[in-house]
Amino acid sequence: MMELLDQVNTPGDLKAFTYKELDQLAGELRNFIITTVADTGGHLASNLGVVELTLALHYHLNSPKDKIIWDVGHQCYPHKILTGRKDKFHTIRQYGGLSGFPKNKESIHDIIETGHSSTSISSALGLVLARDIKRRNDKIYAVIGDGALTAGMAFEGLNHTGHLQSNLKVILNDNAMSISPNVGALSHYLSNIRLDPTVSKLKEDIEFLISRIPKIGTTVANSIERIKDGIKYILISGILFEEFGFTYVGPLDGHNIEELVSNFRNADRIDGPVLLHVITKKGKGYKPAEKQPSKFHGVSPFEIKNGESKKNNKALTFSEVFGHTMCKIGELEQKVVGITAAMPEGTGLNIFQDRFPERVFDVGIAEQHGVTLAAGLARGGLKPVVTLYSTFLQRAYDQVVHDVCIQNLPVTIAVDRCGIVGNDGETHQGVFDLAFLRPIPNLVIMSARDEKLLQQMLYTAVNSNRPTVVRYPRGDSSGVGLEQTMTEITLGRGEVLQEGKDLLIIAVGSRVYPALRAAELLSQQGLEVGVIDPRFIKPLDQDLLLENIKRYKKVISVEEHVLAGGFGSAILELINNYNLKGVQLKRLGLPDHFIPHGSQARMRALYQLDAQGIKNVALEMITGKVEIDLWPRRNA
Amino acid sequence: MMELLDQVNTPGDLKAFTYKELDQLAGELRNFIITTVADTGGHLASNLGVVELTLALHYHLNSPKDKIIWDVGHQCYPHKILTGRKDKFHTIRQYGGLSGFPKNKESIHDIIETGHSSTSISSALGLVLARDIKRRNDKIYAVIGDGALTAGMAFEGLNHTGHLQSNLKVILNDNAMSISPNVGALSHYLSNIRLDPTVSKLKEDIEFLISRIPKIGTTVANSIERIKDGIKYILISGILFEEFGFTYVGPLDGHNIEELVSNFRNADRIDGPVLLHVITKKGKGYKPAEKQPSKFHGVSPFEIKNGESKKNNKALTFSEVFGHTMCKIGELEQKVVGITAAMPEGTGLNIFQDRFPERVFDVGIAEQHGVTLAAGLARGGLKPVVTLYSTFLQRAYDQVVHDVCIQNLPVTIAVDRCGIVGNDGETHQGVFDLAFLRPIPNLVIMSARDEKLLQQMLYTAVNSNRPTVVRYPRGDSSGVGLEQTMTEITLGRGEVLQEGKDLLIIAVGSRVYPALRAAELLSQQGLEVGVIDPRFIKPLDQDLLLENIKRYKKVISVEEHVLAGGFGSAILELINNYNLKGVQLKRLGLPDHFIPHGSQARMRALYQLDAQGIKNVALEMITGKVEIDLWPRRNA
Repeated sequence: MMELLDQVNTPGDLKAFTYKELDQLAGELRNFIITTVADTGGHLASNLGVVELTLALHYHLNSPKDKIIWDVGHQCYPHKILTGRKDKFHTIRQYGGLSGFPKNKESIHDIIETGHSSTSISSALGLVLARDIKRRNDKIYAVIGDGALTAGMAFEGLNHTGHLQSNLKVILNDNAMSISPNVGALSHYLSNIRLDPTVSKLKEDIEFLISRIPKIGTTVANSIERIKDGIKYILISGILFEEFGFTYVGPLDGHNIEELVSNFRNADRIDGPVLLHVITKKGKGYKPAEKQPSKFHGVSPFEIKNGESKKNNKALTFSEVFGHTMCKIGELEQKVVGITAAMPEGTGLNIFQDRFPERVFDVGIAEQHGVTLAAGLARGGLKPVVTLYSTFLQRAYDQVVHDVCIQNLPVTIAVDRCGIVGNDGETHQGVFDLAFLRPIPNLVIMSARDEKLLQQMLYTAVNSNRPTVVRYPRGDSSGVGLEQTMTEITLGRGEVLQEGKDLLIIAVGSRVYPALRAAELLSQQGLEVGVIDPRFIKPLDQDLLLENIKRYKKVISVEEHVLAGGFGSAILELINNYNLKGVQLKRLGLPDHFIPHGSQARMRALYQLDAQGIKNVALEMITGKVEIDLWPRRNA
Repeated sequence: MMELLDQVNTPGDLKAFTYKELDQLAGELRNFIITTVADTGGHLASNLGVVELTLALHYHLNSPKDKIIWDVGHQCYPHKILTGRKDKFHTIRQYGGLSGFPKNKESIHDIIETGHSSTSISSALGLVLARDIKRRNDKIYAVIGDGALTAGMAFEGLNHTGHLQSNLKVILNDNAMSISPNVGALSHYLSNIRLDPTVSKLKEDIEFLISRIPKIGTTVANSIERIKDGIKYILISGILFEEFGFTYVGPLDGHNIEELVSNFRNADRIDGPVLLHVITKKGKGYKPAEKQPSKFHGVSPFEIKNGESKKNNKALTFSEVFGHTMCKIGELEQKVVGITAAMPEGTGLNIFQDRFPERVFDVGIAEQHGVTLAAGLARGGLKPVVTLYSTFLQRAYDQVVHDVCIQNLPVTIAVDRCGIVGNDGETHQGVFDLAFLRPIPNLVIMSARDEKLLQQMLYTAVNSNRPTVVRYPRGDSSGVGLEQTMTEITLGRGEVLQEGKDLLIIAVGSRVYPALRAAELLSQQGLEVGVIDPRFIKPLDQDLLLENIKRYKKVISVEEHVLAGGFGSAILELINNYNLKGVQLKRLGLPDHFIPHGSQARMRALYQLDAQGIKNVALEMITGKVEIDLWPRRNA
């Protein structure tokens, strides 16, 4: 079954194989990935799509001297398996196991770490310039998907590379046979009436020439047809990249190893930037994934025979709650429109899109444009709701400050995947947003603890006529069920969820229910612990918080966010501003290191952010035991 | 002198003029701008370049029903003058006066506020989509410069607009006759040997056709020449935009009002996106500015007769200190390379570039790419130094997190214009960076109080083998002079600048000297005030700070930064982490609103961040008087 794969421990081991054997190896690799991911979950369709491409690259190159940069990086499974990590592959995305993304500390073959899209050309160009300055001759290949090209950052990289004429090879891994906006524009290109007089003249001249064809004969006639096809072909296939100074090669069959290797060899002969346009099929070789590549983009464990998920879960995710709520709000308020950056399914906006297709704008992987587009829509009198994952909101930070908040425009930003995201790990954690959003004037920031509050917060945000962020965690909602009627909450008003006297827990968003559970555990020991959900991180409910902090004196803040500048710091600032004396505040949150991958539950327990962890800290504070320093805080 | 301009109080007043009169008006407008800016300082060259374009737009359109979006916005002076702000124009960029950028609160004709580059297409598309949903028929024109097009965000906007085929008109205000990287790439395009078989075939076919020309006669020969020119012309001029689905019109003479208006009329007949390529001359009509447009981009008051600055200042700016220091470090360390995002002069990197041209990469207005390029250079074994203004670093936030700090790469980010920037105002303040940088693991953050420390910090950063930020303010250095020898400072070590006993001031960067001055003023009243420069905001010098905070008990932190999540909050976190009791900390910084324009000195005084302000607060704390709440802190 794995007779060839068993022989491969380093990329160098591929060199001995024939193309026929490489094809057989591709099949083995594919089976290995399918059977493993069916057990572990992970990114499937994209990895099945690049099996031959990865084999061709490692067959042609000498990694790690030569360097492959995987854009986004979730398609690195075949690469990991071929670079000495076959035996650990079953641990992928599990705590302590292999990362689902390239990691330099895991392997010298993972030269650049990725996770967010569209960075590969920039990173790779950096490697190329360093190589040239050091007069080395490593081959450097960046592999970027067609979707990732819609991000402006990729264009910045292409433009600069073309300008410098640096020897970088970029593989465009094209899953869709085309980059749709360009093709749509180009069919228009040659057929439309043109304003430009030179172009109109050109068109006339071509027609004139064609009218003369019968006199010349069939050879020239064929030539003219070829010219016409040729012009069209250049325009459609390669010119965008040629404009950016790249030599264009393609399109190539991304599942034909021999064709790929032969073109890599040709490309290496060009001392300048080359774009190799490689057509691949997402999910290749596994029928359920070929049919539904987007369902099999990232999967939980599934049955191989039919592709059905092993998970049996009926709870709505927070993303789905968002989508359903958008529908409700959209019915009540015609001005509401939705914006997504290439993630209608991931964010749940597809639910609203199915209902109101004309009221959704999918901008592609273009968070910057998405947020500023929302600012324009708001200035134009609409009520835009942009939905982004917390980690990708980092891409649009300046736009939130400069285009939304300075102008104080009524844009709602629905921030999904706040806090610990689980198995995606370091690159995807949503643990910085409070720190980078809190300082922005005019902005309202809310965090939802459950689906009902998420509904209320979204409705409040849309009606607030202000720039507003509504945060919620990744994963299943808490199960309290949905409200049928949309209601608003009062801006800046927190909520006392439980009265007590021994200690107060102020918990944000996803940490509210664990705080309540901690209080319950403590009540079994006869301790009365109060719990407040501030709901608003900005503006804080100062009156409520000050009154309760003064009363309890012993206070714990809990957030799934780094401690530096987070919610606990907002409480510290409040205590400081009002000069409260004798308060003992313990801030629970994440320490000053990047949070690795592992299930959400496991990571929350590890960082003492679950009910048990909160309970332990509360108990220490109440009983006055020496405080345990949970993790080194030197840089906190 | 101003006979026509005196008659214009709204854009509607232009409609009565003939083209000849509009030309005369252009001259008057130009003189008015030159004479005013010579007194006030401001953006000059770009405004002189768009006088006719602005007149043509307002003549053709009916603002504010129709909408003009000025990208970057510093070229809005003619627009402001024509839209009812002529009489206030002499107050431009002064505290309480007109802003140097479009401001909605100033005028309904400033529909979208700008300041940072490359946002106009996104904002304008938002207005267009809102208009279409509301079934209105306003004309919407975005005006964007050729430089601004290098930012990925502009491409995201173009791509989405072309995809939607929305009726948006984009004016490319091209100062340079070309976008150089594209043209460089295109000369290569038609002449090079091509890999692509279809293209090679096309080339053969064209040659074959040409070889047959004599048999056909001169008409067709001319036609073929025209085709060749035409192909080249399409490729060079418009195809990039056609690829993005725009109809391309141009190039047009940006100083010919009649030609512009006639083309606007034609463009309006197209129900879809049109790009109007308009060639203008920066500094047009004022010889010194035409000759040195980059010197006259932003100017301080100058003599009209020769363009010489009225300012007589010999102090080096911090940016110049940066440039000179880069030269020194570059001599010692061959691995050091510099990166700028289209601002070699503004950042002082030009000084290093003059010395080591091959070691500087100007990436264009592309902060995202610039930072990730640096990450790649660092992974490739070099020591890159990226220099950016604090406000523009916001554009590359995700790249700092994802590409530099997760990989813990030795990239130095030299952050210029931290704190209050003065007359540029709201959009350019560098007052959020500590809050958004502090939470990032692995990152070292330093702030320089003077030129000597800036030198030491840069040298320390480059040798630290870690991601490091070195911050410094806009404007003149403090005058202590430059070190001749490069020395390092100890990572994470602060400095006691003055011993005392009554109160401790911990001041960051630009606020250190005012703190020392405040201490001096207080010593005249017999009070002994200590001053510490922490130098490192991350990691904090915990031992030094804890020891001194414990000793003094009364402490003031001072920073030119918002209070939420800033340096003062870092001190609060430290006090909280170590459970210090009985400390009275007053955090001085900026409140929770966007800081308007006005000179740096004036704004610092206004926010009590100058020596006098610090002294007053210190006095109140020492004497135990009731603390004055400097500004409402409800959302701080």
